[in-house]
Amino acid sequence: MTQTSPVGRPLRPRGKLLQEDTRRHHRSLLLQQLFREGPASRADLARTTGLTRVTVSDLVGELVSGGLVEELGAPAQSRVGKPPTLVGLNADSTHVVGIDLSATDRMTGAVVNLAGTVRARHELPLDGAVGAAAVALVHRLATELIAMTDRPVLGVGVGSPGVVDAAGTVIDAPNLAWTDTPLAASLADALGLPVFVANDANTAVLGEHTFGASGDGGLMVLRVGTGVGAGLILEGSLLHGHLGAAGEIGHVVVDPSGDRCACGRSGCLETILAVPHLRRRLAGHDPVEVLTRVGEQLGAALAPVVGTLNLHELVLSGPQELLDGPLREAADRSIRERTMPVSSAGLVVRTSELGEDVVLVGAAVLVLAGQLGVS
Amino acid sequence: MTQTSPVGRPLRPRGKLLQEDTRRHHRSLLLQQLFREGPASRADLARTTGLTRVTVSDLVGELVSGGLVEELGAPAQSRVGKPPTLVGLNADSTHVVGIDLSATDRMTGAVVNLAGTVRARHELPLDGAVGAAAVALVHRLATELIAMTDRPVLGVGVGSPGVVDAAGTVIDAPNLAWTDTPLAASLADALGLPVFVANDANTAVLGEHTFGASGDGGLMVLRVGTGVGAGLILEGSLLHGHLGAAGEIGHVVVDPSGDRCACGRSGCLETILAVPHLRRRLAGHDPVEVLTRVGEQLGAALAPVVGTLNLHELVLSGPQELLDGPLREAADRSIRERTMPVSSAGLVVRTSELGEDVVLVGAAVLVLAGQLGVS
Repeated sequence: MTQTSPVGRPLRPRGKLLQEDTRRHHRSLLLQQLFREGPASRADLARTTGLTRVTVSDLVGELVSGGLVEELGAPAQSRVGKPPTLVGLNADSTHVVGIDLSATDRMTGAVVNLAGTVRARHELPLDGAVGAAAVALVHRLATELIAMTDRPVLGVGVGSPGVVDAAGTVIDAPNLAWTDTPLAASLADALGLPVFVANDANTAVLGEHTFGASGDGGLMVLRVGTGVGAGLILEGSLLHGHLGAAGEIGHVVVDPSGDRCACGRSGCLETILAVPHLRRRLAGHDPVEVLTRVGEQLGAALAPVVGTLNLHELVLSGPQELLDGPLREAADRSIRERTMPVSSAGLVVRTSELGEDVVLVGAAVLVLAGQLGVS
Repeated sequence: MTQTSPVGRPLRPRGKLLQEDTRRHHRSLLLQQLFREGPASRADLARTTGLTRVTVSDLVGELVSGGLVEELGAPAQSRVGKPPTLVGLNADSTHVVGIDLSATDRMTGAVVNLAGTVRARHELPLDGAVGAAAVALVHRLATELIAMTDRPVLGVGVGSPGVVDAAGTVIDAPNLAWTDTPLAASLADALGLPVFVANDANTAVLGEHTFGASGDGGLMVLRVGTGVGAGLILEGSLLHGHLGAAGEIGHVVVDPSGDRCACGRSGCLETILAVPHLRRRLAGHDPVEVLTRVGEQLGAALAPVVGTLNLHELVLSGPQELLDGPLREAADRSIRERTMPVSSAGLVVRTSELGEDVVLVGAAVLVLAGQLGVS
């Protein structure tokens, strides 16, 4: 049973939605409220969601029976009269499998609970697997992860390099030699579970938005690894772009007189910032000087983006020892020097508290969003 | 009666919306369908909106009585059996007043019909008016425009320079010496009509999106005048940004060794692209060479934006004789040279078919969106 990825757009007109999916929509409203704001009484839920108390009681009853939601008793400090019973998400009632395919030497995975906490980890070495062999390795990793939890598994999420369409087909991922590879469909068939696949940078920004220490303004997660790519959440929604290629900034030319790039051009952002290039540049040089210069170049490239989007948060995701120090500080300073205060006053440039887990946790968010309507 | 600007975000939770505003929402669904797709039968409307045929007939009856919608008879080519009657928007049943405050020497206005066609024009010289005198001038222009149509006026829309909040208060517009000026509220009180005020670049992108020859991908309208600013529609929605300052790219530094800018920095985009700077640079030089160089610099500044957003359309709005030629061509070429094919393959770089009317027509769209739920 293939599921449409939550990164796809709704296909049905709104009126149809009202007729068919009202109950499902109301259920998501309740779950989203409990997910975002924590335990609440039924009366509070009715107030904050705008649903009637009868509808709330009915749906909460169903969710408690199903195990997703649990009765928590009365709060310690209650008002006059009979204290209301609180209900909350039962974070370990069901688990989610998240898989990160962005590393070049291995595939990593985790069992994640509904609160975004990693409960178990597992990884398999890639050993140069490409094509069908790489697909088989994802199948094996998913199967082994599912066996690592005794809870029901809500679904499997995968963050993949390359361009991924809304149905979870990997259109093009050169490192894995995948072209039009229906990864979500094949996994769903094999596992009998809902499967969601999205681009790794988009997956990372969903993880950071939902479980990182992120605010509600515009968020850009810049992934720095073998390549460089970004995921963006603007006005609360993942940005796809015209042809699904939003965030593809690794091969934007930032220094036409710079190093030759594998893509054929010179001075692409990757030739400056990607980890292999960065490490080569650091060898035998003053690291502070090198990282500061790279940060300045990154800041110059991102200043027009920050000015255009009035971003709230720019998160650098990758090796902390390279990114979190002179590089981040120089990028931050350079962006502020090159934009108006109105654009950069509210900007935070930081690394992710989720560290290297951001794609794994984001892959879990794909499932939570797709299956429960929460994120 | 002050209205909340349509550029603001909905404040009510979704459940409340379902209970209170279902009828209004259904009415907007029908109007939006007729607005976007043109005349349709009641059966077609039921099919495309997902509403029941009873609901559609009921609402269409109400809209026909009110005059917004008219019966158009049967289509020339009809199928077997009784041909269905088509209904369509009555474009001149009601008019909208649009006002553009972005010029430095005058205030321009127009009476616009529901199809975005300008029915009458009027303008007043600014004569250096600032502060309260400039507000009084907007009041006079609006009043005189309302007197120019014999149709009911649905409301007044205003595109203003500077930062404008969701309630239509101009937070800061240095050229007009406005600070926290409640323009929408004062106009609404004086005119007894709904009034919507938004930033001129945001207003322009709404005009282009609704009535320009624009597609459905990401759209950026770059306004080039005394200053430089942009408005963006991404994934179908106007981008506000973290603190409402999206599109403020006039003072992004694109050439640190460039000319001194009024803002105190050097080499801001405005020092290269704003009309006064451009005209000064052209004096006594080969225009093709100057415009090509400026286009290349603009392209270099926008390449990271295009790569990040995977834009569909970049529209240059301002003096056609400056923008539509070597400058546009060089910008287009430079963006493509500096981004991956996946980012720029679908990109169109063009000027606006609406010309200088784009803000006026966009101001009318503010009203259509706010009052009828169409855009």
